[in-house]
Amino acid sequence: MDAIEVIVAKRDGGELTAAQIDWVIDAYTRGEVADEQMAALNMAILLNGMNRREIAGWTQAMIRSGERMDWSALDRPTADKHSTGGVGDKITLPLAPLVAACGAYVPQLSGRGLGHTGGTLDKLESIPGWRASLSNEEMLGVLRAAGAVICAAGSGLAPADKKLYALRDVTGTVESIPLIASSIMSKKIAEGTGSLVLDVKVGSGAFMKTPERARELAETMVALGTDAGVRTVALLTAMDRPLGRAVGNALEVQESVEVLAGGGPSDVVELTVRLAAEMLEAAGITGKDPAEALRDGSAMDAWRRMITAQGGDPDAALPRAADTMVVEAPASGVLARLDAYAVGLAAWRLGAGRARKEDPVSFGAGITLHAKPGDAVKEGEPLLTLHADEPARFGRALEALAGGYEVGPTAQEHLPLVIDRVTA
Amino acid sequence: MDAIEVIVAKRDGGELTAAQIDWVIDAYTRGEVADEQMAALNMAILLNGMNRREIAGWTQAMIRSGERMDWSALDRPTADKHSTGGVGDKITLPLAPLVAACGAYVPQLSGRGLGHTGGTLDKLESIPGWRASLSNEEMLGVLRAAGAVICAAGSGLAPADKKLYALRDVTGTVESIPLIASSIMSKKIAEGTGSLVLDVKVGSGAFMKTPERARELAETMVALGTDAGVRTVALLTAMDRPLGRAVGNALEVQESVEVLAGGGPSDVVELTVRLAAEMLEAAGITGKDPAEALRDGSAMDAWRRMITAQGGDPDAALPRAADTMVVEAPASGVLARLDAYAVGLAAWRLGAGRARKEDPVSFGAGITLHAKPGDAVKEGEPLLTLHADEPARFGRALEALAGGYEVGPTAQEHLPLVIDRVTA
Repeated sequence: MDAIEVIVAKRDGGELTAAQIDWVIDAYTRGEVADEQMAALNMAILLNGMNRREIAGWTQAMIRSGERMDWSALDRPTADKHSTGGVGDKITLPLAPLVAACGAYVPQLSGRGLGHTGGTLDKLESIPGWRASLSNEEMLGVLRAAGAVICAAGSGLAPADKKLYALRDVTGTVESIPLIASSIMSKKIAEGTGSLVLDVKVGSGAFMKTPERARELAETMVALGTDAGVRTVALLTAMDRPLGRAVGNALEVQESVEVLAGGGPSDVVELTVRLAAEMLEAAGITGKDPAEALRDGSAMDAWRRMITAQGGDPDAALPRAADTMVVEAPASGVLARLDAYAVGLAAWRLGAGRARKEDPVSFGAGITLHAKPGDAVKEGEPLLTLHADEPARFGRALEALAGGYEVGPTAQEHLPLVIDRVTA
Repeated sequence: MDAIEVIVAKRDGGELTAAQIDWVIDAYTRGEVADEQMAALNMAILLNGMNRREIAGWTQAMIRSGERMDWSALDRPTADKHSTGGVGDKITLPLAPLVAACGAYVPQLSGRGLGHTGGTLDKLESIPGWRASLSNEEMLGVLRAAGAVICAAGSGLAPADKKLYALRDVTGTVESIPLIASSIMSKKIAEGTGSLVLDVKVGSGAFMKTPERARELAETMVALGTDAGVRTVALLTAMDRPLGRAVGNALEVQESVEVLAGGGPSDVVELTVRLAAEMLEAAGITGKDPAEALRDGSAMDAWRRMITAQGGDPDAALPRAADTMVVEAPASGVLARLDAYAVGLAAWRLGAGRARKEDPVSFGAGITLHAKPGDAVKEGEPLLTLHADEPARFGRALEALAGGYEVGPTAQEHLPLVIDRVTA
């Protein structure tokens, strides 16, 4: 078998055989298939698609490229959640300890910020002392101590996906549903969770701009998880506007702690509780009320144990940006629209995200929203506060925001927070 | 500008701007755009196409990546021919000296064998002493001495195309009409010829399997040449069966010399004379009869001067393969069919072609045809003779030939030798 044969088969609209998929993933991981060959194959897949059987084979081949974790030594069911990424999406932070407080183990492997979307690990690293990299033994120790662990995937997990993901990032081949679905699910299945809830974001701030594309991705991933023996369910949720009132690393940790303390913005609370209920149901845990676990402090206790077990100080002051700039409401009325992508891009430019993989992020940078779409605003009152370490960053952030918000007589139509639910 | 922007524009079915094309070709030549990025872009171009304006811009950008040769110091018009490649296609060998004998200068840059098709340089290198690599000054010297020169393109000519061609070869992106047309025409325009005749092969032994695809390629190339000020015409010619009776490097040199001596197979003679007439017309040379130049020995004289000027001995014995094997006619009747691809693949496996760019070819290896489609054959008489340096090669060559020929009551239908003519 050789790479050209596999590329040409997909280029000409054919279906890849199981043997072709197994060979090409393995040979690429070993370096026998070159980056330029895999890039051509990825573009052919993006343009000509893969069917369910091919996607399942591709996912399984990526899982087999590395180790598969095993939590069978634990005495409670495992549950995990994955979001396809959005603006202000800090849900994993309150959610993991909340579900742990309700009786599941949550072994959550997370990622870093990508483009205009934030990354869970970047957010948590704004907590002084907190460590993202754990050995498998350390992961098990944190799980036993706190019920939840949020950390970086080790290099042994789906190494084919790691290599492929870096390649897709520079070759314009990210936006393929078969490749996105297999990338996410190979990591989640290899991670060894017994149940999985997928939060597939929809709207300007998400990779999937329409409910139709999001539903296709959700159905593909739910089928992949189910076929691999993982109880999998997906919610399609709104990302046409930012989630919550804070966008940026430390700013989102702060908001997450407010939710764990029983407060916080209503959309963050609602989505956290809904996802927790889905995770508990998928894990087969009944009779627990996640909203109550937020009120009674048990979720906060799990959070503090989790942060402490990973070297962090839950009481330490969080980093703050050196400079702030207030964007005022241009008129009186209602905040008719606040676009998720514009806010995400502005936060990225303020320093909350990275331009290249090797760049550091600014922990304090980001945006605070003083109004959410539908809220009344008064001309000249603060609408947004921008946070940055260097004032030079405000200019390009303001450019990103231009046209991204509108004050008018009434709010424009927005997606419902939870749009749909997809099951096997 | 960055590579991802250009890739995504073509991936999403858009038209590349002139600035995007200029930038990506230049940046790729300088190594700023990586091979994996260019591979993804090539696959997107193969699947989504390029329009005439994009193809012209792509071709011009490749020409600008290197030097452009200039023959204005010569006192006669220049003419060149390019074939898209076939099995037994040695036409360049008798054609270049023939056209020189009729009064044009023929500065012919040629290539090496690719896959099942032979390469002009590989054929000529079977002549003891003959050198393919000449400096520009040496090229001019051979042209002045013999009227024709056949040599390898220097590294300064369209370096972007050289790099791109090697990339396409390993990434399954060869079979794109925009990329084939721009690759051929960038070299031919940079070569500085004043007129150009394209021989676009059609059939199983050619890259273009149907007259429709071949016509599309021919029209694209004729438009590119014409726009660049080169008088360009294309013939679509048959490659459903091999051309002539010899396939393989030294075997084809031998047959070419027979044609130059006034003999040789009728199809080789007919196509050589027809292409010579087209070249003379495109060069504006009138009142010359190429058939006469074959009969009167003037073409042979030009051949001997050309070979000698490039270090070769036109009287030296040509290499012969160590072993031969005869394939006999399985029945009496007519050779109904002899498939060009099967014969080309068999000759390749006998050693006439190379598996990898860096492999040597066997000069003596190849196939002699004792009958052409339509000829009467008798059971047990020789149909083909296979030539190879190692007898171990005969087995896989016979496998390639299985099903590639048929003896029956009548010949099957074949393409006419010259199918069509395409002008601006």
